[in-house]
Amino acid sequence: MKAFKVAVLGLGRIGQIHAKNLQQLFPDLSLQVITSSDTGRNFAEKNHFPEIGDDFERSLQDPGVKAVVICSPSDTHAHYIKRSAAAGKAIFCEKPLDLSLEVIREIDEAVRTAGVPLMLGFNKRFDPHLGALKRSLQAGKIGRPNILRITSRDPAPPPISYIESSGGIYMDMIIHDFDTSRFLLESEVTSIFTRAAVRVDPAIGEAGDVDTSVSILTFENGVMATIDNSRQAAYGYDQRVEILGSDGMLQMNNIPVDTHLVFGRQGASQPPYLDFFLERYAAAYREEMRVFIEALRQGHAMPVGVEDGLRSTAIAIAAKRSLDENRPVEMKEIL
Amino acid sequence: MKAFKVAVLGLGRIGQIHAKNLQQLFPDLSLQVITSSDTGRNFAEKNHFPEIGDDFERSLQDPGVKAVVICSPSDTHAHYIKRSAAAGKAIFCEKPLDLSLEVIREIDEAVRTAGVPLMLGFNKRFDPHLGALKRSLQAGKIGRPNILRITSRDPAPPPISYIESSGGIYMDMIIHDFDTSRFLLESEVTSIFTRAAVRVDPAIGEAGDVDTSVSILTFENGVMATIDNSRQAAYGYDQRVEILGSDGMLQMNNIPVDTHLVFGRQGASQPPYLDFFLERYAAAYREEMRVFIEALRQGHAMPVGVEDGLRSTAIAIAAKRSLDENRPVEMKEIL
Amino acid sequence: MKAFKVAVLGLGRIGQIHAKNLQQLFPDLSLQVITSSDTGRNFAEKNHFPEIGDDFERSLQDPGVKAVVICSPSDTHAHYIKRSAAAGKAIFCEKPLDLSLEVIREIDEAVRTAGVPLMLGFNKRFDPHLGALKRSLQAGKIGRPNILRITSRDPAPPPISYIESSGGIYMDMIIHDFDTSRFLLESEVTSIFTRAAVRVDPAIGEAGDVDTSVSILTFENGVMATIDNSRQAAYGYDQRVEILGSDGMLQMNNIPVDTHLVFGRQGASQPPYLDFFLERYAAAYREEMRVFIEALRQGHAMPVGVEDGLRSTAIAIAAKRSLDENRPVEMKEIL
Amino acid sequence: MKAFKVAVLGLGRIGQIHAKNLQQLFPDLSLQVITSSDTGRNFAEKNHFPEIGDDFERSLQDPGVKAVVICSPSDTHAHYIKRSAAAGKAIFCEKPLDLSLEVIREIDEAVRTAGVPLMLGFNKRFDPHLGALKRSLQAGKIGRPNILRITSRDPAPPPISYIESSGGIYMDMIIHDFDTSRFLLESEVTSIFTRAAVRVDPAIGEAGDVDTSVSILTFENGVMATIDNSRQAAYGYDQRVEILGSDGMLQMNNIPVDTHLVFGRQGASQPPYLDFFLERYAAAYREEMRVFIEALRQGHAMPVGVEDGLRSTAIAIAAKRSLDENRPVEMKEIL
Repeated sequence: MKAFKVAVLGLGRIGQIHAKNLQQLFPDLSLQVITSSDTGRNFAEKNHFPEIGDDFERSLQDPGVKAVVICSPSDTHAHYIKRSAAAGKAIFCEKPLDLSLEVIREIDEAVRTAGVPLMLGFNKRFDPHLGALKRSLQAGKIGRPNILRITSRDPAPPPISYIESSGGIYMDMIIHDFDTSRFLLESEVTSIFTRAAVRVDPAIGEAGDVDTSVSILTFENGVMATIDNSRQAAYGYDQRVEILGSDGMLQMNNIPVDTHLVFGRQGASQPPYLDFFLERYAAAYREEMRVFIEALRQGHAMPVGVEDGLRSTAIAIAAKRSLDENRPVEMKEIL
Repeated sequence: MKAFKVAVLGLGRIGQIHAKNLQQLFPDLSLQVITSSDTGRNFAEKNHFPEIGDDFERSLQDPGVKAVVICSPSDTHAHYIKRSAAAGKAIFCEKPLDLSLEVIREIDEAVRTAGVPLMLGFNKRFDPHLGALKRSLQAGKIGRPNILRITSRDPAPPPISYIESSGGIYMDMIIHDFDTSRFLLESEVTSIFTRAAVRVDPAIGEAGDVDTSVSILTFENGVMATIDNSRQAAYGYDQRVEILGSDGMLQMNNIPVDTHLVFGRQGASQPPYLDFFLERYAAAYREEMRVFIEALRQGHAMPVGVEDGLRSTAIAIAAKRSLDENRPVEMKEIL
Repeated sequence: MKAFKVAVLGLGRIGQIHAKNLQQLFPDLSLQVITSSDTGRNFAEKNHFPEIGDDFERSLQDPGVKAVVICSPSDTHAHYIKRSAAAGKAIFCEKPLDLSLEVIREIDEAVRTAGVPLMLGFNKRFDPHLGALKRSLQAGKIGRPNILRITSRDPAPPPISYIESSGGIYMDMIIHDFDTSRFLLESEVTSIFTRAAVRVDPAIGEAGDVDTSVSILTFENGVMATIDNSRQAAYGYDQRVEILGSDGMLQMNNIPVDTHLVFGRQGASQPPYLDFFLERYAAAYREEMRVFIEALRQGHAMPVGVEDGLRSTAIAIAAKRSLDENRPVEMKEIL
Repeated sequence: MKAFKVAVLGLGRIGQIHAKNLQQLFPDLSLQVITSSDTGRNFAEKNHFPEIGDDFERSLQDPGVKAVVICSPSDTHAHYIKRSAAAGKAIFCEKPLDLSLEVIREIDEAVRTAGVPLMLGFNKRFDPHLGALKRSLQAGKIGRPNILRITSRDPAPPPISYIESSGGIYMDMIIHDFDTSRFLLESEVTSIFTRAAVRVDPAIGEAGDVDTSVSILTFENGVMATIDNSRQAAYGYDQRVEILGSDGMLQMNNIPVDTHLVFGRQGASQPPYLDFFLERYAAAYREEMRVFIEALRQGHAMPVGVEDGLRSTAIAIAAKRSLDENRPVEMKEIL
C-alpha cells in the first residue's frame, strides 16, 4: 500500500531524472507520469512506472495525487502551476517560473491564495559540494566574506533554437549563478555591471544573444562578486565557486570523471570533468527531490520558492540592461 | 509483467546493498529477499520489496527464480552455492567462497557439474576508477608494466569477533588486493614475501592475527609488486594503485567526500576520503550487479569466478606462510 | 679584471635583492652600491661588495659605471632617471616610474634624447611560471583567448604610512596586474569598470584608499578580464592567472612552501604559500636582472620600458576614476 | 679580508655545484678550486674563482685552508680523506666514502685520530621538503610511525661505464634511500628483503647489475618500510616519501617544473617534474654547504658522518645479498 501519488508532468531530459529519482528514493510512493511523446512513453515503460498517462488534468482531479512535479516546456510552467495550485496540489517546478516578473507575481499570488507549497528547482542549492562550502562559510571558517567568485561555463552551447526562446544567457544559464550567489551569501544583490560578447559562435549573436560574459555584483552585506560565464569550455563543464573572507578562503572545485592520472614524458594528465549538469549534479537532483518529498511529509516550508525565482529573474533582467546600456544597474531600478 | 525473479539471500550490510541495487537498476525484474533477522525484515518492508521470505530452500524450488545472490555468513557460502547449483540457479556469491582450497575445489566441481554460471563478488574489479586505470594500461599508455604498488588501508579495524572467524587479514582484507593485482596485470603470482606486525591493537595479536603488513609479489610476466596494508588509517579509507611502466606511470588516487577546500593561516585543507567501502565502492557494487544480470541475460561468461577465488585464496595462504616462516614462498608450493 | 661596473642606488628591501643577484649572477662584473643608511651599509659590508658609496653623482661621473639600478624611494625615480640618462648610463628602474603621466612623458623624453636604454622593473614578467603560461598561450594550446582572470592578493596590508604616499592600491599594487594582463594578451586595454571597498582595515579608508577591489577590463582584441584584489589574504600571498580560450584553459597556480602533506582525521592539509613577493618571485628577480645585463651586453632592446610604465599608470588612473564616478571608463579618456 | 679558505677538490658536476654555492653563500670566505680538467678550469675562470690550482697537496700544506670539499672520483675518496685528516683539515666528502666496510672503518680511524670533523654528502637530508616532513613526524602529527614508503626513481639510467664501477644500484643509488629511512625514523635497520630485475636495459644486466628493485626493511623501532626503485622513470625524477602513523599519514611529493596547467578536451595536464637531482635538490645542496660551514665556525658536531656512511653501505651490502640468496638478510650478519 503506497502512501500517496506524485505526478510527474513531462518526461524530457529533466523529467526522466526526477521520475527515476522518485522511483528509486521512495519505494513507498506511487508514481504517475504524464507524457505525450513516444520517447517519454518508451522511457516510462522501460522503467515499469506504474501509471503512465497523457492528460495532466486527470492527475489534478485524482485525489490520490498529493504532489506534482512540473517538467513541461518553460513557457507552460505558469499555466500548469496555476492549475495545480487551484487543484490544491503541492508543486515542484523546474526553473524558470517564467521570464516575466509580472507572471511570476501572478504565480506567487496563485500559490498563496491556494495555500499550497511550491518548490523551485534550483538544483545547485542541493549539491553536496556547494553545501559543504556553505557550511564552512556559516561555521565561520573564513570569517567575514569579502569577495565571491563564480565561474560557470558549459561544455558546449545549446541549439540556436533553444537560445531563441530561452530568454538568453542571463535568463537560462547565468540565473543559476545569481541564485547561487544569493544562496551562499544570504544577502540580496544591490547592483550589477556586465560586459559580454559573442566569442563562441556568431550564430548566437545573430539570435540576439551573447555567449561570453563577465559580471560584477554588489550585495547588501558589502560583498563584491565576479561571475564569469561561457557557453563553451572546451575542457568540460566548469563549476567553481570561491569566497575570500577575512580569515581565509573557500573553494569548490570541479570533479574529474575518475581519479586516475597518467604520467608521461610531457607531464601528468588528469581526466576531464564530469561532462555536464546531469552527471555533475546527479546527487543534487536526488537530494532536491528528497528534500521536496520530506518537506511535504513533515509539513516544513520549502527551502526555495517563488521569491527566489523572482529575485534571480530580476537580476537577469538587470544584467541584460547593464549590458545594453553600458552602465552599472541598481537592483532597485528593477524590483 | 516482470522478466524473472532474483533471490537475495541475507540482508546484512552487503545484502542490503545488492537488493537495493537490483531494485533500482532492474525495474523489470522481481526481487525475492530471504532474511531471518528483524533488521533485514524491516529493511525489506521499508523498501517495499515484493517478496520477503525466510526459507531459501523455497526460493530454490521456485521455478520463477532464475538467479540467487548469496550474502549469507561466509562459512555458509559453500553450502548454499552447492544447493543453488543443484537447483540450476545462476549464482552470485559474495567473497570469500571459502577459506579452504579443498572446499573451493568442491564448489568448482559442483557448479561445473550443474552447468550453472557463478560470479564471485570481487567488487573492486568493477570500480570505474580502477577500470579507467586498467584501460590506460591496456591501451599502452605506459608501455610495459614494471612495478605495481597497492596501498589498501581500512579506516578502523573490525570487531575482534570478526577477526577471530575471518581467516585473518590476508584472507578477509588483503585478498582483495591480491585479486586486484591479478586483475590489473592479467598475470599470475609466482612468489610472495611478507612482513607484518601488530601495530594497531594488541587485541588483534591476541586473536592470532596481525594488523599491519607489507608484501612483495612477483608475477609470471616479470612485474614486481608491493602491497602495504593496515587495519587502521586514521585519515580514512585509503585505496591507491600505481603502476610504473617503461613509458610512464599510472595512478589511481583516493576520493575526497567533496571538492571543497579551506585555506587558512596554516595552509589549505581538503576534506577526508569517502569513509569506507560502501561509499568508496558504491558505483562498483552497482556495476557488479549490472554485469551479473547482463551476463546472465546475454548468456555471456561471468567475468570473475571460482578460479579467481581459488587463486586469491592460495596467495593469502602463501602470504601467511611467508610471515610464519620468514622466507619468500613460491606459489607452486601451494597450488 | 671585471668587465664593467654596475651601480645600485639604494639598499632597501628591493635594492638588496638586486645587489645580491648581480653579485651572484655576474662574477665578472664589479658592483658599486650607493646607500645612505646604516642598514644598507651593514648589508653591503656583510656581503663584501667591493665598492660602497653614498654619493650617486660620483657613480654617474665614474666612466667605469656602465649601468645603474635605481632602487631609491619612488618619488625620486624621475630625478635619478633623468640624471642617469644625462650621464649616458643604461638604466634599470624599479616601478613606478612616477605617479603622474606628465612626469612619465618627461622621463620618456629624457631617455630618448640621451639615447640610453631603460628597463622598468615589472618583475612578474620574468616569473618562470607566468612565462610558461604565456608560452602555452602563444603556442596556441587554448586557441583564441576569451576570458582572463587574475587574482592578486597580498598576505597583509602595508603600513598606513606607505599607503598615504604610494598613490593607492591601483597605483602601488594592482598596477602589476594591469601590466600582467597587457603582457599576457599583447593587447591594449580599452575600458575598465571597478568596484572597491574598505573591508580589511578602516585605517586604510581613513587614509583615502580602498583595500578590496574587483575590476572588469576589455581589450582591443576582444578579451574580457576580471581582476580581483585584496590587501589581505589570511592564507598567504595569492597570485593566480587563468585564461579561457576557444580550445581550453590555462592556469597559473600558487606555490606552497613545500610539498609535504599531512593527512589526519579531518582530511589532508597542505602547507601555506610562499609568504610574499620576495619569496614567490625570487626567480623572477634573478631573471629580470639577468635579462637587463644580457640585453645591455648584446645591445638588444629592453623588453619592458617607459611605454609600459605609461600604459599601466594610465589604467590605474582610469580604475580610480571608474570607482569614483561609478561608471565604466574608456582608456581614450586618459591617454 | 676573507675569514679563511675552503679548497674544493674536483670540478665535475657536483664539484661545480659546491664551488658555486660556497661562492654565493659565503662572500667572506676565500675559495680555492683544484682541478686537472679543461672543463673544470674553464668553469673556474668563468666564475672568477680567486685561486685555481691543480695540486691538492699544495692546498693541504696551505695553512689558510681550513676546510676541504672532496668531489674527486669515488675511488679516490678514502685516499684524500686520509691525507686531509693528516693535514688537520675539516672535511666535507661526497658520498660514498668507499664501497668497502673495511676502508670506511679505516677512514673512521683516520679522522678520529686526527680529531678533524668530517661531514658526508648525503644531500637529501638537507632538502627542505624532506625536512618539513621530518619535523611533522617529530612534532607527533601522525603519532607513532608504522609504515614508511620510499619511491625513488631516476629519469634515465647512467652510462654503463658508470654502473660498472659504481658498486651497483644499491651502492650508488638506493643507498640514498637507505640513509633517508634511517634519517627519518632515527632507528636502525634490522633486516632487509629485496627483489630486483633487469627491466630497463639488458646492457645493465650484462654489466652485472639490476635496474628495477623493491625492498622491505624492518627497523629496531618496529616500523616496516618498502623502497621501490628504477633506473628509469619516463615521466621524470620521482622522489616520494610517505609515512603511515597511528594518527595519520605524511607525504612528500614531487615538484613540477612550474605551476601552470593546461586544460583541454582530454583533461588537464601538469608540467613534468624537476628533471634530475641537481634541480630537485638545488636547495638541499645549498643548505648542506651552509650547514657544513656553520658547524665548522660554531664548532658544532657535523650532522652526518662516517657512521652514517658505514650503516648505509652495510644495508646496501645486505640488499645485494638478499637478492643473490633469495632470503631476508639480518643486518647483524653484516655489521
